[in-house]
Amino acid sequence: MELEFIRWLNNRIAAHPGARLGIGDDAALLEWADRGDCVVTSDLLMDGAHFRLEAGDPPKRIGHKALAVNLSDLAAMASRPVAAFVSLALPRNGGLPLAQDLVEGMLPLAEQFQVAIAGGDTNIWGGPLVISVTAVGMATEHGVLRRDGGRPGDWLLVTGALGGSLLGRHLDVEPRVAEALVLNDQFEIHACLDISDGLALDLSRLASASGCGAILEAAAIPVSDAARQLAQRGDGRSSPLDHALSDGEDFELLFSVAPDVGQKILAAQPLAVPIRHIGELTDEPQLWLRREDATLEPLAARGFEHQ
Amino acid sequence: MELEFIRWLNNRIAAHPGARLGIGDDAALLEWADRGDCVVTSDLLMDGAHFRLEAGDPPKRIGHKALAVNLSDLAAMASRPVAAFVSLALPRNGGLPLAQDLVEGMLPLAEQFQVAIAGGDTNIWGGPLVISVTAVGMATEHGVLRRDGGRPGDWLLVTGALGGSLLGRHLDVEPRVAEALVLNDQFEIHACLDISDGLALDLSRLASASGCGAILEAAAIPVSDAARQLAQRGDGRSSPLDHALSDGEDFELLFSVAPDVGQKILAAQPLAVPIRHIGELTDEPQLWLRREDATLEPLAARGFEHQ
Repeated sequence: MELEFIRWLNNRIAAHPGARLGIGDDAALLEWADRGDCVVTSDLLMDGAHFRLEAGDPPKRIGHKALAVNLSDLAAMASRPVAAFVSLALPRNGGLPLAQDLVEGMLPLAEQFQVAIAGGDTNIWGGPLVISVTAVGMATEHGVLRRDGGRPGDWLLVTGALGGSLLGRHLDVEPRVAEALVLNDQFEIHACLDISDGLALDLSRLASASGCGAILEAAAIPVSDAARQLAQRGDGRSSPLDHALSDGEDFELLFSVAPDVGQKILAAQPLAVPIRHIGELTDEPQLWLRREDATLEPLAARGFEHQ
Repeated sequence: MELEFIRWLNNRIAAHPGARLGIGDDAALLEWADRGDCVVTSDLLMDGAHFRLEAGDPPKRIGHKALAVNLSDLAAMASRPVAAFVSLALPRNGGLPLAQDLVEGMLPLAEQFQVAIAGGDTNIWGGPLVISVTAVGMATEHGVLRRDGGRPGDWLLVTGALGGSLLGRHLDVEPRVAEALVLNDQFEIHACLDISDGLALDLSRLASASGCGAILEAAAIPVSDAARQLAQRGDGRSSPLDHALSDGEDFELLFSVAPDVGQKILAAQPLAVPIRHIGELTDEPQLWLRREDATLEPLAARGFEHQ
């Protein structure tokens, strides 16, 4: 089957100027003369954990997601996507058509961000579908954004709206690649990551890597419509804000900047998606949430962890 | 578990000068200023197909294999290994100790070839162990070796001895990284690949990519001791030569050169492992095997295919 799939891929995928040698040799060759540092990220997606074939998740959307979450990691570093490598462990009852649908779901995104699908590995087995994608990007002349560059007093900014991705957005991830490149090009960003496991948990990672704590302003956190819907459907235990704080797979950017830079960014709103000021980094390592009535409560670094 | 594993990794894995930023951020950053083109390869290994945990394959040897087969692909391109990215889908009854053993099995090899284990993704699930490794290498000033550069009349040369890897060598893969770099540095190599699915099948790939056919000399093919043992154990249907032609996972180099270069290589024997002249590329697309009594028979492009 692998040979047939490779033949199909070679017909389906247009030649990419950056990939001097793509699918079909022992490895891919990416032209790198005079380019920036090489940024690499890998994500493994498993049936039953990151998507559910049996529950009817469409393979094309799964393929989209598998590539998108990797591009979101490149976005978190403000690097320019170059190529992606897709390895599949296909269930016996899926085979070639499933592989084709997965790739078909990746192609619009690959085209949008000029990513070459340049290689991978395809196998059939008795187990459930596993998709491993590795994305390779290039650092720009502005360098990369890391999660450990935050400083006490930094403003915390976030793109888009948070929570409720389970209602569908977790499959329709829009990686903030262009947005991160614009931000890194026009402003001095101290630290950045993509929110993959929920705002509270990912904030704790950024703060901890930066040797800081943080205060979030409850009233300022952008709550998505899906988060409100989920809260309504639930048994009242989780508010829309809870969903915005703790649901996974938002894939929005959380970043920290000096306050004067934050003011400029809010005034400029340089992206198609809104940017909001949701809190500050602090000296002390604790995380806090300031409620609308100004009471402070500890914020648990809880979020979505597959395991 | 992932956090605990990442902590363990960061303690266990020495800082690597080429990896400016390794495990722990959204992506790894590999220093690439003034380096050659970027060579990338991915292999997915699944329990039951590429190794058998239940049958007692030791996790450390499985880890070794998972990295080694990727380094063998970089070797096939004569590129210098830089970094590897390891993604794991761990069975629930294995967990952290299994992940640690897999990595422990990779570390000696990583050290030997100065490969940074710079990232990946770790998950636990209800399915069997899946290991995805992506290796990133750098092209040298001599360029990369491809499989499509062979010419009619080229000599076919091979390193080491072939067949019988099932007796154990398939787990103890020795990637021919240093050997390929020496060959590409000292001689003009037209085409090269690593024999992963058996000599006959991989030869058909090299010949077909190069628009050639080939004749192999049965008497010249280096047959491993393991191939002889397997033939003895078998029911007589497969000769030692059959094993050398069709068993998978030799991970030796098969390459083609002009005859005068071939003579120089055989005279010099520049590697610690022997190089043998086993046949020629031809104008016509067919594959042939010349028996010791000089009879020619068609050679089937058969080998080991997981699916």
